[in-house]
Amino acid sequence: MLKKLLVANRGEIAVRIIRAAKDLGIATVAVYSAADADALHVQLADESVNIGPPAAKKSYLSTEALLKAAADTRCDSVHPGYGFLAENADFSDAVKNAGLVFVGPSGDAIRLMGDKVSARVAAARAGVPVVPGSEGRVNGIESARAILEETGFPVMIKAAAGGGGRGIRIANSQAEFEQAFPQAEAEALAAFGDGGLYMEKVIGKARHIEVQVLADGTDAIHCYERECSLQRRRQKVWEEAPSCALSDALREELCASAIALAKAVHYSGAGTVEYLYDDEADRFYFIEMNTRIQVEHPVTEAITGIDLVAEMLRIAGGEKLRLKQSDIAVKGHAIEVRLCAEDPAKDFAPFPGKVDDLRIPGGPGVRFDSMLFSGYQVPPFYDSLLAKLIVHGDTREAAIDRLIRALGELQIGGLKTTKPLFVALAADPSVRAGEVHTRWLESWLTENAAALAN
Amino acid sequence: MLKKLLVANRGEIAVRIIRAAKDLGIATVAVYSAADADALHVQLADESVNIGPPAAKKSYLSTEALLKAAADTRCDSVHPGYGFLAENADFSDAVKNAGLVFVGPSGDAIRLMGDKVSARVAAARAGVPVVPGSEGRVNGIESARAILEETGFPVMIKAAAGGGGRGIRIANSQAEFEQAFPQAEAEALAAFGDGGLYMEKVIGKARHIEVQVLADGTDAIHCYERECSLQRRRQKVWEEAPSCALSDALREELCASAIALAKAVHYSGAGTVEYLYDDEADRFYFIEMNTRIQVEHPVTEAITGIDLVAEMLRIAGGEKLRLKQSDIAVKGHAIEVRLCAEDPAKDFAPFPGKVDDLRIPGGPGVRFDSMLFSGYQVPPFYDSLLAKLIVHGDTREAAIDRLIRALGELQIGGLKTTKPLFVALAADPSVRAGEVHTRWLESWLTENAAALAN
Repeated sequence: MLKKLLVANRGEIAVRIIRAAKDLGIATVAVYSAADADALHVQLADESVNIGPPAAKKSYLSTEALLKAAADTRCDSVHPGYGFLAENADFSDAVKNAGLVFVGPSGDAIRLMGDKVSARVAAARAGVPVVPGSEGRVNGIESARAILEETGFPVMIKAAAGGGGRGIRIANSQAEFEQAFPQAEAEALAAFGDGGLYMEKVIGKARHIEVQVLADGTDAIHCYERECSLQRRRQKVWEEAPSCALSDALREELCASAIALAKAVHYSGAGTVEYLYDDEADRFYFIEMNTRIQVEHPVTEAITGIDLVAEMLRIAGGEKLRLKQSDIAVKGHAIEVRLCAEDPAKDFAPFPGKVDDLRIPGGPGVRFDSMLFSGYQVPPFYDSLLAKLIVHGDTREAAIDRLIRALGELQIGGLKTTKPLFVALAADPSVRAGEVHTRWLESWLTENAAALAN
Repeated sequence: MLKKLLVANRGEIAVRIIRAAKDLGIATVAVYSAADADALHVQLADESVNIGPPAAKKSYLSTEALLKAAADTRCDSVHPGYGFLAENADFSDAVKNAGLVFVGPSGDAIRLMGDKVSARVAAARAGVPVVPGSEGRVNGIESARAILEETGFPVMIKAAAGGGGRGIRIANSQAEFEQAFPQAEAEALAAFGDGGLYMEKVIGKARHIEVQVLADGTDAIHCYERECSLQRRRQKVWEEAPSCALSDALREELCASAIALAKAVHYSGAGTVEYLYDDEADRFYFIEMNTRIQVEHPVTEAITGIDLVAEMLRIAGGEKLRLKQSDIAVKGHAIEVRLCAEDPAKDFAPFPGKVDDLRIPGGPGVRFDSMLFSGYQVPPFYDSLLAKLIVHGDTREAAIDRLIRALGELQIGGLKTTKPLFVALAADPSVRAGEVHTRWLESWLTENAAALAN
């Protein structure tokens, strides 16, 4: 078992990791930037180290500062949380090279899954359905035309060297394609010094469904799926488990394919295999694997009773998986909503400030994961996530009813938050019916955002 | 289903009932004395009614005031909570006679179980082991001597018309008995105008184990047991489920006997059959049945996933039991501790006051049921219970570890509370080993109370 853990993160996930470590008797060291000296994760950890100024590059993103903090406090391990360096392969390697345990997969596994093209190839080789398209780079327009037979239209043409949405073109017909392809090639060369392209079918209305896996480098199990179709600007805002869109047969298939991929890459730790599910065509497609704990992990914990962060720590400490697949059973339905310091009526403008009155909902089936306390000053430098409200009920209906009740009890005084968004979504007939897809919320917001007053 | 519920209580249980009703879409009416106008249960309910002054007899114990509040707000039902009128048979009858639904058993069932002698007779007839002693009143000293063969020494001689510990004598030998019996007879006659006595074996070191039942007047199921052996002045302070002292065979026997009793008295609602378990002799004895929801119900909710208050409301609304016995499975281990506004270092003297900073623990497996909020003024008039901290883990060990972690996070600033008692108990080797009985805590406190500083 690990003895002393550096928690290389801040906010609610740092608090979450400290809780899991304490539950297991592992000593904890928090790190903080000057902006976070009074933060809850610093208060709850056994020790804490100031690692630099508010600018993340000089603190939470500084491998040097983090490794120095770990060495100075004689930690034997580092948990990266999510965001910051959690999916940075070099950081995983650096932690290992410093003689410490990285709570997560190897640098190689992160690297393989972090590159869209290599991840796609690995998935296809493991028999996981990928979005129809080129296997890696397209070798000229002749090959591209052949790929069109598989993708159909619309098709996405993307610079292989691009990233973050840059260098993408969509062609809706053969004519558009014939024009777009050479243009994209020239643009990619100009922008990235590399004219390489790849192509992918554009999946229209689809659901985002992901499978939680736990693996120890040899064996892998799944903890069923989460559905996270309610997204704004590709950010999940409401997550639930299980998905109401899957048949049992498809669920089995989806989960089995996630395990196949995890085993194929000798994955270790907690990971998530993400899919798009086209429910009209009843087909699913691999999109990516997240090689870290995810924000939405508590909905899986609620329905399975498994403490995923504790399992990560056990695996990192050298234990083999202690759970068998047959140990994992789903009970009821859980929903998580992300409460952010943003004003939903003003295009979700950030709203940092001081929390003057905090009322946390309670009772059965309610969990509140947060770094908030009354009097806490939310700094303006970081992610706006304040808290995750997680509810669990016998059925999806019961979970939504409980969400409505718990939101009614919740008060985060002094700030504008995204709570009104969730009050409205919980009352929406499409959400209640589970008839949503990844673009549903953006469209809903164009009609409803103005009314989401705090 | 019920439509509108009067919550005839205050404090954390009123909040708990309002939460369950809201989860089910039942409208809620809170009642409050002048001392509770700003209380959380008043804030959370849909409506509220001032029912009188702080003195409980003129407010929370006034059938007239409560029924008037229910009529004025057009409620169709009344939930009594625990304490106050919850086990008052006449109140149950009065609610029914007013044309409303009482969320709990009939007046007759409350009356039968509320009388120690008739409850004992009912239990014995249902085949439930009772403490060896007289079946009802002892018919003279000759009969009493015969009963001694069954009870042995020490034996308790008690005035049939007594109550609350009055009129009790303990005889440790035949000689003491021969002297004590006629004295007790004379005293009972003088004190109560009724010389009737009954006798019961004194159970020495025993555990308090109780079985949760749910019944609909016809059928009954159990939700397994709770152990509440850590008591101070017969008040439970730490409760857990399951009991670590029972074999599976004994657990089955205990639970079956609770169901037999519930069925025999045509019980309806949630109830608890309480036993003493002498683990050296491996025998259990019925002590009483509580005909209401109990303070410690959340530990059962944690290990079974059942919302007991919601089930009470469903049954009161006319539904038959929707759960079968085979639906009830136990997962993990749960512990509840009762945080009271008392100073444990000063003989648990009450400590009402203003809560100036409240920090509620979170994360997986932690539940906090309370009426507290930052700024709340705890009134001096009522029970000192402030909050229940409930933790759930895979094993009893894990639950204790999580309790230690959660207590570390909990802050109820501005008051002295019983938190230090639980910090000390969670670290105690006897508690960790589960080697306790109902008198263990009193004895432990004589050594350790002074060190329980807030």
